Amino acid sequence: MTSVALLTSGGDGPGMNAALRAAAQTAGARGVAVVGVRDGYDGLMDGRFVPLGRSATGTDGFDSNALDFVARQGGTVLGTARSERFRSPEGRARAAEQLKQRAITGLLVVGGNGSLTGAHLLARETGVAVMGVPSSIDNDIGCTATCIGVDTALNTIVEACDRISDTARSHRRAFVVEVMGRQSGYLAMAGAVAVQADAVVFREQQRAPETLVAAVADVVRKAFTERGKRRVLILKAEGVEVPTMRLVQLVEEAVKPVLPDLEIRGVILGHLVRGGNPSFLDRMVAARLAFAATTALLEGASDEMVGWQSPVTGGITTSDASVRRFPLEMVLAETARLLDGTSPVTQRRVGLMSKVEGVLQL
Amino acid sequence: MTSVALLTSGGDGPGMNAALRAAAQTAGARGVAVVGVRDGYDGLMDGRFVPLGRSATGTDGFDSNALDFVARQGGTVLGTARSERFRSPEGRARAAEQLKQRAITGLLVVGGNGSLTGAHLLARETGVAVMGVPSSIDNDIGCTATCIGVDTALNTIVEACDRISDTARSHRRAFVVEVMGRQSGYLAMAGAVAVQADAVVFREQQRAPETLVAAVADVVRKAFTERGKRRVLILKAEGVEVPTMRLVQLVEEAVKPVLPDLEIRGVILGHLVRGGNPSFLDRMVAARLAFAATTALLEGASDEMVGWQSPVTGGITTSDASVRRFPLEMVLAETARLLDGTSPVTQRRVGLMSKVEGVLQL
Amino acid sequence: MTSVALLTSGGDGPGMNAALRAAAQTAGARGVAVVGVRDGYDGLMDGRFVPLGRSATGTDGFDSNALDFVARQGGTVLGTARSERFRSPEGRARAAEQLKQRAITGLLVVGGNGSLTGAHLLARETGVAVMGVPSSIDNDIGCTATCIGVDTALNTIVEACDRISDTARSHRRAFVVEVMGRQSGYLAMAGAVAVQADAVVFREQQRAPETLVAAVADVVRKAFTERGKRRVLILKAEGVEVPTMRLVQLVEEAVKPVLPDLEIRGVILGHLVRGGNPSFLDRMVAARLAFAATTALLEGASDEMVGWQSPVTGGITTSDASVRRFPLEMVLAETARLLDGTSPVTQRRVGLMSKVEGVLQL
Amino acid sequence: MTSVALLTSGGDGPGMNAALRAAAQTAGARGVAVVGVRDGYDGLMDGRFVPLGRSATGTDGFDSNALDFVARQGGTVLGTARSERFRSPEGRARAAEQLKQRAITGLLVVGGNGSLTGAHLLARETGVAVMGVPSSIDNDIGCTATCIGVDTALNTIVEACDRISDTARSHRRAFVVEVMGRQSGYLAMAGAVAVQADAVVFREQQRAPETLVAAVADVVRKAFTERGKRRVLILKAEGVEVPTMRLVQLVEEAVKPVLPDLEIRGVILGHLVRGGNPSFLDRMVAARLAFAATTALLEGASDEMVGWQSPVTGGITTSDASVRRFPLEMVLAETARLLDGTSPVTQRRVGLMSKVEGVLQL
Repeated sequence: MTSVALLTSGGDGPGMNAALRAAAQTAGARGVAVVGVRDGYDGLMDGRFVPLGRSATGTDGFDSNALDFVARQGGTVLGTARSERFRSPEGRARAAEQLKQRAITGLLVVGGNGSLTGAHLLARETGVAVMGVPSSIDNDIGCTATCIGVDTALNTIVEACDRISDTARSHRRAFVVEVMGRQSGYLAMAGAVAVQADAVVFREQQRAPETLVAAVADVVRKAFTERGKRRVLILKAEGVEVPTMRLVQLVEEAVKPVLPDLEIRGVILGHLVRGGNPSFLDRMVAARLAFAATTALLEGASDEMVGWQSPVTGGITTSDASVRRFPLEMVLAETARLLDGTSPVTQRRVGLMSKVEGVLQL
Repeated sequence: MTSVALLTSGGDGPGMNAALRAAAQTAGARGVAVVGVRDGYDGLMDGRFVPLGRSATGTDGFDSNALDFVARQGGTVLGTARSERFRSPEGRARAAEQLKQRAITGLLVVGGNGSLTGAHLLARETGVAVMGVPSSIDNDIGCTATCIGVDTALNTIVEACDRISDTARSHRRAFVVEVMGRQSGYLAMAGAVAVQADAVVFREQQRAPETLVAAVADVVRKAFTERGKRRVLILKAEGVEVPTMRLVQLVEEAVKPVLPDLEIRGVILGHLVRGGNPSFLDRMVAARLAFAATTALLEGASDEMVGWQSPVTGGITTSDASVRRFPLEMVLAETARLLDGTSPVTQRRVGLMSKVEGVLQL
Repeated sequence: MTSVALLTSGGDGPGMNAALRAAAQTAGARGVAVVGVRDGYDGLMDGRFVPLGRSATGTDGFDSNALDFVARQGGTVLGTARSERFRSPEGRARAAEQLKQRAITGLLVVGGNGSLTGAHLLARETGVAVMGVPSSIDNDIGCTATCIGVDTALNTIVEACDRISDTARSHRRAFVVEVMGRQSGYLAMAGAVAVQADAVVFREQQRAPETLVAAVADVVRKAFTERGKRRVLILKAEGVEVPTMRLVQLVEEAVKPVLPDLEIRGVILGHLVRGGNPSFLDRMVAARLAFAATTALLEGASDEMVGWQSPVTGGITTSDASVRRFPLEMVLAETARLLDGTSPVTQRRVGLMSKVEGVLQL
Repeated sequence: MTSVALLTSGGDGPGMNAALRAAAQTAGARGVAVVGVRDGYDGLMDGRFVPLGRSATGTDGFDSNALDFVARQGGTVLGTARSERFRSPEGRARAAEQLKQRAITGLLVVGGNGSLTGAHLLARETGVAVMGVPSSIDNDIGCTATCIGVDTALNTIVEACDRISDTARSHRRAFVVEVMGRQSGYLAMAGAVAVQADAVVFREQQRAPETLVAAVADVVRKAFTERGKRRVLILKAEGVEVPTMRLVQLVEEAVKPVLPDLEIRGVILGHLVRGGNPSFLDRMVAARLAFAATTALLEGASDEMVGWQSPVTGGITTSDASVRRFPLEMVLAETARLLDGTSPVTQRRVGLMSKVEGVLQL
């Protein structure tokens, strides 16, 4: 194998560029050329390639200095997309053809569940050697403890909640803060513990709307009347059935008899949480995962994903065992269980949060 | 005069705590005791006072170490409120009584237009010596070039737009970002120049909804088709008639014939922009304004506001002339003109922005 | 047990205040009173206690609102110290006496190796029930994958290196950046991977000064002459024998024949890396560890430390098994091996870094 | 005039890239092509030009999307240098020749005093039309209230002092923090007010070393013994005769009789303060100054600098009068007076600080 390609696909996340650099580095150190693909699978099918690393001379690629520079930036400099065309076997055959024409025998796919599904089908149908690198700020991919982008998103959430806490305590107000996570409540759960939210609301709790409103109203009421709080903070995942501004309104009405003057405010962080320079941990995770995936690809692996299994919180792990490989088929099956709630991981997360929530209300 | 009081009122802004510390410092250096008032005019009428500065011993006030600590935090540790009761002469008489009982002869009010109106009435009706310090992240107060909180809010907007730009350019998308400013488009205008927005939308432009949608659609269309942009960013002030998510929808429809796949996203920064540790400039502005207001109060001034008139961008100005005093009556009149659009300041701002907007589209 | 005490000791680290809040929360939820101890073991021997949590009324303690506020701040609001007096059995007996007088039967010690040694001796000699919570930005404590403060320190290092990279690439310069870690090179190692340093230098490599200078000079020379780099970045741990500014000078001389105009600069981050608002992960680690330690104490455990053993990078772990308890005796023995280089953990870290370093030079 | 060039020179500062983008935008809007020059005057003499803006197609320049991206980054993507060769008339003639060969009739120079001196000589000797844009984090240029980079540097200083304050108050320690400014104490002065330092030390105070040590020791002694402070912070400018670590040692010795256990620490921020993403104000100042300079150049001006004279703290000024033009000869003369202490600006700054310092010690 003398040439590999790399693409970023699906939702962007901080650390994608660091993965790009690490892959170019790792391949370069073995004398293998790396090319980047513009705009995900769309660019692959259309043959839009750019040179990366030391071999990138002259034109529109990214040489060593450019990679140094972009590796610390959020988003992806290669561009990303969600491709309709790639969902058909014809699209995937076209992609394989583009790689073959350029004698590129391996492909690294940095992306989330949809992108990894595409990678799996490409490998199975066309024989292209493909390795997946998990990137999803929602942390909703199976067989990996974390994904590229999760830690930065959580740091952004924590900073945003700090700002909101400043104004909440100045005015003695409650805030409902909505974070991304259509199917996975992970950002809401993890954020809630770190910012000491008074409650957390996410899809996996499976609460009926009335139960939900009553529970949140109860927390708000007690916080101000019994616990003497100045700041009340509720974290809410995007996937919850009741929209945030509607929830704010319903809770305000529910507590009105006891707290007639209380103002509750909603803030939807949305896309704000997706960008920003990657945190230490996302750069480390991106570098280690990309290193492992590139090495595996160069050693002949295919149709697999690298997952983070480290016995540490990150940083320099004590051994290479921190990153492990899993067949994409297993990853996709485990992801499905994670999202439909049948995975033990989901059940333990929900169980842990119900315990934590009781303690949150100081 | 041997004792002065200080309160924060209205919307909180980063730098209020720095003003609090500087006032305590300034009065303390002259041997005058300072007390803080909790929760704005409400706390004043209810007699909720806390000791500040070196004289704060033992109990629930803020001694020198506490002031050092809080001065670098957002929000206001004294609490703030919008008081209905204070709008009546009876409320203001009650407030004056509370001050009199404690032999407090001067009051510093850190707040926005409503709070300064209250301060003016209190001074006129009851003879309490009152000095105003302008604080409003919207920069909508007359007779001052800036207010406590403006610079931090703009830095928060800039950081948020940087994050959003990461994801916009990764996906080749347009974003409409809404910032605070119900009556004043200042944050949108100033932010747009700094983040190189492709367009800016604010109430003072007085555009009819259809004209507005057509203008924004035109910018978006040209940006992607003629200028080859990957990231399009529109800044929008809260006060504009068309709600942000509705604007996004209308523009998406308007450009659909030419850009059928384009996704436009809306982000409402809202209260996020109100908190956070104060920037260098807000700490400097807060310290200088509070110093000047306290000194004026101790020298017998009343019914005035200190305004920032410095011939510099901030920081160490070359003379004390950078801070000047204005009768509150003049401030309030000038503020009214600023907001109804008859002030030359408003007209020049709008004029400047229409010139700038032409250049923004690189 | 109806009352427990908590102290912070040794070097401060971001997250100590979050641990304080979580401990107060956990004990409070079980109806147990918590008191804080000022300035570490010194305050304990002198009986300087402050109330914490809901029971903190009136005076100088920290009630729920104060804990909400401080939990997101760096440093420790209780104060910390390195106590000489506590190194004697008399000092420790005095401490036990103070606790006994107030009917406090358990003590939480948040600190590093010296503090945990003191905790161990206190438990063994006096029978006071003691639980340790590991806090050390250097990550130099045995039996735990991370400590409170490590992740924030690494984020601060990453941000500082980003700033330095801006000026390095503008001028085509090399920088040597020194980070804390007298005995442990962890911050330098982990930081180097995340910021894509061109080389990393730390005590555990056991390089003779001349070898060290030659190796660094070689990296610098090749980076500019062969790899065409604009920015060269060397991370160096505090504990390395050659002082940073001396190293800069020696390397500049060594490369002068080939690069006569090259300017190398040294930056010593030092205490800058110790403060700052805790990151997401440090808040999470602090909350989870303090929760586990308080629970263990209330259930009768003593002379133990809680360590982070999670199979995830942090955040919401899938089970409570992520935090485990270890006898302090074992922790201290493992720590000694970590620092003298005989621990397999140290050896694997050094081994991993020598592999990584080869790849770093893109 | 159909083509202009732009270079960045001398020490880099955050906002240089924003100036670059604004200049390209302004010229582009008038149909004028802009080229960038690599590595300052060195690149100019060697003819290393890169296309900028919409005309930048294909190769190694910066098109609109690249300019959007880099405008929010610190440093300068064009590179910068201090050129020896350009100090000779031959070097300047060579530079003029390069411009002439490419039919470039105007040059924008973004830089500090040395760079502006070079610009002045180039204009006078060769007739090339040159406009200067002031960039210097030290704020040591005449005829302008601020320079590109000053506000970001001050924000970095403020954040660093916040971090240091966390650890200082945890341990009850004093810190001396050194900031850049070999000849100008501006960063130390302005920073001291914003971070509420207990004292500030800078070259322009002209204190003899013994007086300096005695004064600082006095502040430290009183802070801990009389004022009960937990955190003492001294800001010191680089240009002060006594080196920072020596000052720390001398003050520690001087206070030892009264404070035998006090530990004082020194932190040298150095190059850390030079990088980082530009703040709101630096982006605004850069955009407005570059706009004005480019417009002036296109209208036939030469041998001038644009200075910030706004009657506001920044942001959207009420008129275009905020930016004014000055002959470079006047700028250089005023700069000389600023640095040798004969300028009234310097005298007022020093006078103001001596007043402020008295109040700083709460």
